[in-house]
Amino acid sequence: MADLSVIAFRPAPDQYAWTFGGTEPVARIRPGAVLEVFTEDCFAGKVQSEKDLVSEVCQFPFLNPQTGPFYVEGAKPGDTLAVHFVSIEPARDWAVSTTVPLFGALTATHSTAMLHDPLPEIVWIWRLDRHARTCRFQSRRGSYAVDLPMEPMHGTLGVAPANLEVRSALVPDSFGGNMDTPELRAGVTCYLGVNVEGALVSLGDGHARQGEGEACGVAVEAAMESVIVVDLIKGQRCAWPRIESDSHLMTTGSARPLEDAFRIAQAEMVTWVSADFGLDVLDAYQLVTQAVEAPIANVVDTNYTCIAKMAKRWLPKVEVYGSAHRRLRETAAAYRSQK
Amino acid sequence: MADLSVIAFRPAPDQYAWTFGGTEPVARIRPGAVLEVFTEDCFAGKVQSEKDLVSEVCQFPFLNPQTGPFYVEGAKPGDTLAVHFVSIEPARDWAVSTTVPLFGALTATHSTAMLHDPLPEIVWIWRLDRHARTCRFQSRRGSYAVDLPMEPMHGTLGVAPANLEVRSALVPDSFGGNMDTPELRAGVTCYLGVNVEGALVSLGDGHARQGEGEACGVAVEAAMESVIVVDLIKGQRCAWPRIESDSHLMTTGSARPLEDAFRIAQAEMVTWVSADFGLDVLDAYQLVTQAVEAPIANVVDTNYTCIAKMAKRWLPKVEVYGSAHRRLRETAAAYRSQK
Amino acid sequence: MADLSVIAFRPAPDQYAWTFGGTEPVARIRPGAVLEVFTEDCFAGKVQSEKDLVSEVCQFPFLNPQTGPFYVEGAKPGDTLAVHFVSIEPARDWAVSTTVPLFGALTATHSTAMLHDPLPEIVWIWRLDRHARTCRFQSRRGSYAVDLPMEPMHGTLGVAPANLEVRSALVPDSFGGNMDTPELRAGVTCYLGVNVEGALVSLGDGHARQGEGEACGVAVEAAMESVIVVDLIKGQRCAWPRIESDSHLMTTGSARPLEDAFRIAQAEMVTWVSADFGLDVLDAYQLVTQAVEAPIANVVDTNYTCIAKMAKRWLPKVEVYGSAHRRLRETAAAYRSQK
Amino acid sequence: MADLSVIAFRPAPDQYAWTFGGTEPVARIRPGAVLEVFTEDCFAGKVQSEKDLVSEVCQFPFLNPQTGPFYVEGAKPGDTLAVHFVSIEPARDWAVSTTVPLFGALTATHSTAMLHDPLPEIVWIWRLDRHARTCRFQSRRGSYAVDLPMEPMHGTLGVAPANLEVRSALVPDSFGGNMDTPELRAGVTCYLGVNVEGALVSLGDGHARQGEGEACGVAVEAAMESVIVVDLIKGQRCAWPRIESDSHLMTTGSARPLEDAFRIAQAEMVTWVSADFGLDVLDAYQLVTQAVEAPIANVVDTNYTCIAKMAKRWLPKVEVYGSAHRRLRETAAAYRSQK
Repeated sequence: MADLSVIAFRPAPDQYAWTFGGTEPVARIRPGAVLEVFTEDCFAGKVQSEKDLVSEVCQFPFLNPQTGPFYVEGAKPGDTLAVHFVSIEPARDWAVSTTVPLFGALTATHSTAMLHDPLPEIVWIWRLDRHARTCRFQSRRGSYAVDLPMEPMHGTLGVAPANLEVRSALVPDSFGGNMDTPELRAGVTCYLGVNVEGALVSLGDGHARQGEGEACGVAVEAAMESVIVVDLIKGQRCAWPRIESDSHLMTTGSARPLEDAFRIAQAEMVTWVSADFGLDVLDAYQLVTQAVEAPIANVVDTNYTCIAKMAKRWLPKVEVYGSAHRRLRETAAAYRSQK
Repeated sequence: MADLSVIAFRPAPDQYAWTFGGTEPVARIRPGAVLEVFTEDCFAGKVQSEKDLVSEVCQFPFLNPQTGPFYVEGAKPGDTLAVHFVSIEPARDWAVSTTVPLFGALTATHSTAMLHDPLPEIVWIWRLDRHARTCRFQSRRGSYAVDLPMEPMHGTLGVAPANLEVRSALVPDSFGGNMDTPELRAGVTCYLGVNVEGALVSLGDGHARQGEGEACGVAVEAAMESVIVVDLIKGQRCAWPRIESDSHLMTTGSARPLEDAFRIAQAEMVTWVSADFGLDVLDAYQLVTQAVEAPIANVVDTNYTCIAKMAKRWLPKVEVYGSAHRRLRETAAAYRSQK
Repeated sequence: MADLSVIAFRPAPDQYAWTFGGTEPVARIRPGAVLEVFTEDCFAGKVQSEKDLVSEVCQFPFLNPQTGPFYVEGAKPGDTLAVHFVSIEPARDWAVSTTVPLFGALTATHSTAMLHDPLPEIVWIWRLDRHARTCRFQSRRGSYAVDLPMEPMHGTLGVAPANLEVRSALVPDSFGGNMDTPELRAGVTCYLGVNVEGALVSLGDGHARQGEGEACGVAVEAAMESVIVVDLIKGQRCAWPRIESDSHLMTTGSARPLEDAFRIAQAEMVTWVSADFGLDVLDAYQLVTQAVEAPIANVVDTNYTCIAKMAKRWLPKVEVYGSAHRRLRETAAAYRSQK
Repeated sequence: MADLSVIAFRPAPDQYAWTFGGTEPVARIRPGAVLEVFTEDCFAGKVQSEKDLVSEVCQFPFLNPQTGPFYVEGAKPGDTLAVHFVSIEPARDWAVSTTVPLFGALTATHSTAMLHDPLPEIVWIWRLDRHARTCRFQSRRGSYAVDLPMEPMHGTLGVAPANLEVRSALVPDSFGGNMDTPELRAGVTCYLGVNVEGALVSLGDGHARQGEGEACGVAVEAAMESVIVVDLIKGQRCAWPRIESDSHLMTTGSARPLEDAFRIAQAEMVTWVSADFGLDVLDAYQLVTQAVEAPIANVVDTNYTCIAKMAKRWLPKVEVYGSAHRRLRETAAAYRSQK
């Protein structure tokens, strides 16, 4: 572990990426590299008080800035990237949430088009106590306040898309992107299929916490200091992002309507359990049906995202993706012991 | 508590209900009554071995038999029923699951109509160990077997629908019904709006356990011995079924597409938090967005069902529905101490 | 034709049906009978001026009154009813449309639940000129007025549902019901699968005209004087309502999301063309893909409805359902010549 | 009209575009220019016989080749492009359709993920008779054959997307693209909002004919010789593609689920009628509800597309987009008279 490659990268203001694909890499890294990165919040840090309305201070397409992309040496289409989250820590003592006109699950939107006026636009500043690990909700139109647990996560992690596409950083799809799942937390490894040479991985959209579904469209948005390890698994494909924790295997699906996101995630889990754990596909269908959790990630983005989550203890003892998660856990431990 | 009214009811074979509404009550009960009931499994007990295919041994509409309905004295439209689950225990040492032709989330169905042949029809018999609290999955086309925790629940609990309707016991909707949510377990209270005199509540469809979404369409189906307490809250409406546990408030939505089920449950939670806990509706929208869990119930029934689940500890200290849940917990304790 | 059985039926105010199924028949008829019926408008005639708001003058479940049901002698489950529309004529010189709070395609609804206030509730009275065959739109908040062609149709035609169900007259489903398709006009024959003895057919919800999709939720609603012939096809099933005109075969699907309604109608057409016209199913898939029209019926009711419409001239020369349509056309001609 | 600018462009094999955005223009044109273009079929001409299976002869992303993009001088974000179709003529005497594994409305797909095997992959070669204006369907597994009217159209017409995105030529969205609507025929003008300097307009995906919905996913695909006129309307926005014919105004929506595509198109029509024709928005909602047609374009692409179609004769006499359609009709006439 003497040769742990640690790269720190804090983007200059003009150095953020606003898309997946279509952007020059900010750095080239070797598989196994540890990245210490700063990520801005989804509003590019422009919403700082209750007076900063998104519709006034932000401007398309400059939303959801991504840190990266990083060019991973040796990554080619058909390989899989393994991104391990060592730590995700809020960079400031506040975070922000808002309503955004014509965005969210309980409002007319540009695609669920209706004749209503937009809901009122309101900003909530959340106070973060990084020591107590809490974030404080304070009502805007009343006095009620409450501390919720801080549970930091990245809303966005992705690689360049296939098929020559360049997608907005607001999009979740098979390349990852703006999945907005609380499952993308410290301690997990996310697998992403590589579509272009170098993979071009980036991340952003830190949330101090988020409910399932992200109903109003905006989580507790926070700039983050994060540490990730990026590894490469040669010659193994990954059609949709997968997540591994010490205890669970997870698959993701991003689509509309929401049942299609559910279907993708469930079908991915059934075929994974069948292909890698040796069960017949219908046996896998049965076991997954009775054992799976299906946490909703978001029902607000351009695609909705759903997770299928399976406890490892209920599956045959098999290590997936060449034991990448265990290996990356060791790298993370080595990194922490160096600090 | 000396006057605890306990009624035991085990339906004769011809005494099951196959619908919500449209059926004569099997008994009249007073609010506060304790019911000890037997419920048959969703196949009316006809699938007992791997050779009993649903398509051969079952026949529409004789699926998902309901125990009840019970006429609750004094219940009128505009009131709310509170049904507390004291216990839910498998009545046999086995349970069953199957694939059913053109039914389930990962297959063409009668409404997601396609040109595929149905998937193969296979039956799995699950062994239940009521002492160890486990249910054993055994592969049909391989040797893999595993014990999953037994987590008994009722897939179905409902009242007669509004608008003169009579609905199949396979339907989940605003009257409750076949919601297929693992949240309907022992220890919770379910609130159901009353649509007709006497409410006409019934239950069935026991599951030894079920994953979220019930992907293949069939859980670990089991006959149950269950104890419930049925109470009445006068003059308070309940548009969609709500569930209260010691720790959480939950709302439900049943609709297609799945995002509409999500929207109903989330909007119900936002307006509940606003109406009963004193938050402005947009403050409630914000708090729910960051704090809520959204467990999927089913993505296979005639309507899909989604839950919104909010921890009480994050809300102002308010008891809802006249403290019905706490009171019913006490009735349950009194019942158990009598046994 | 001397024995043409003609039955006139004009419901008394308390004689309407508000459901499909669950209602005693108003009359028993023999197959081949001609029915002269009056149907009230969907608001039971209660919205008569711009001041009559639906939310004030109407009350659930007393919406969409049905004339019937009629018990068809000899009809049994597994048979198909053929209902031919001889004529559909507005009974008054006015019709009405409105917005209804939380109902329609471009507004939040009870199932697409949102936090918006309802859109304003407005009534439009349309003047009908039965001689010129026009209906006049008059702006409420401006002066613009225009005559549109009168194209009378019935929004609702259905039989009692299967599976012991009773459904509101506002529901479209496999039993027919509130399909709201402009294709249900004079000159067509509608085929409906029989689910219960006597079929129990009823109709209502006349529209002087309607656009495709019925966006605001309410067409140009009119009481009607209609003449239909009801025939019975023994031993032939019909899973979803089908419509035949002199020039076209049509299938219907009613479901949510809208693509499922589309899928049902298209799959029904492909399998119909394959089963009755002798094409291989994939050849039928190809021919239908290139030749079909897919007029949307409604995107507002509890299920959305879509039609698949195929010109007969592009199919092998085959008469379907025992030439029922041609035979009923002759009955209609005989009826008219008697008048 | 002496100065009619006519540009002929026939792409070399390596000169096609496979995306909207992200491609260098093949030519710069002035507003008002007439373009004579050749477009390849959606399979890049590689499926030429019943033995050429798409899964074998085609390769992602090299599907749906676009002719263009053309840089329109002076076009800036906030302007609108007006593209008039003078003529669309099949370039060969045959066209092709196929089933494609896991693509289409009546099959499991990558997003409506299921456990079925794909449907069989079959190719149909259609014979075109350009003199008789017919295309001949010939069964593959039977003898039935029939001539359908040739009704040439372009499945694809689009500009570079907003928000820095690059999208596959298979995608329909607010920038136009793969809308697959039969309404894009000779004689109409399509309005497209400009998102980037020069607009970067391209077209392709000719269909000798197509049914509504394009159920199997593939129309009667044909290389085309087409003539278009491209004009520019300065300072007027267009959020979604609109189409004008001599008789109708049309709006489009592309989204999933299908009801959202319907909603977008209908809301666009209501707000258009309100903004440009002086009706109050709720009066427009009423008039559109009763008068509109809603032809489905496709229910198979990455977004589904729906049209709202309104007869001009039912609207106040107003010319939209600076009478662009009428002016372009005159240019087309001048072009034809020169030939």
